[in-house]
Amino acid sequence: MNSIYKKECAPCKTGADKMSSSQIESQIQLLSGWDIIKQGEISQLRKTFKFKNFEQALKFTNKISEIAESEDHHPSILLEWGKVMITWWTHTVQGLHINDFIMAAKTDNIL
Amino acid sequence: MNSIYKKECAPCKTGADKMSSSQIESQIQLLSGWDIIKQGEISQLRKTFKFKNFEQALKFTNKISEIAESEDHHPSILLEWGKVMITWWTHTVQGLHINDFIMAAKTDNIL
Repeated sequence: MNSIYKKECAPCKTGADKMSSSQIESQIQLLSGWDIIKQGEISQLRKTFKFKNFEQALKFTNKISEIAESEDHHPSILLEWGKVMITWWTHTVQGLHINDFIMAAKTDNIL
Repeated sequence: MNSIYKKECAPCKTGADKMSSSQIESQIQLLSGWDIIKQGEISQLRKTFKFKNFEQALKFTNKISEIAESEDHHPSILLEWGKVMITWWTHTVQGLHINDFIMAAKTDNIL
């Protein structure tokens, strides 16, 4: 299993390192089921999780929110009946930072 | 104030009445800040709510989820830092039903 989930997010300010395409390619292979998507020029990390009802999807949303608050790094969470789509990226670098891969691994680990 | 928020959703099965464009035009005028958007052929009712932090956005998400469960009618909820985008529509009619306007009014009433 990808042990990156044990790491904590580094404080991330404007000017912090945005990951290069090759760094992203290398990190994405350590995750399962996550896709790199583009919103304009911004690369993001996205995965959809399925649940058997709304209640379970909401519980997952609240668990993700808890780690987001504790790491002070917040995703976009799309909650619908039976599914939750999580998207991680870092506003300050306008793309992906290693923190996003740490949070993606933590997201998987919650399940 | 639009008192439709006091109504309850009617059970809605396949074959139930999808609202016509003129019915939608009439109902949308009773709401404030909601837009009609199109996802392919499906009309949806959408509004974005701003908050001062993630915690308040999450609280709002949980309140909306509570009424969604109690009425057994569930929106799409996009939760991000400081904002929540709510989208209502009715799967069974592939568009808008009066229930969606009831739920939009209930959503506003929660604030």
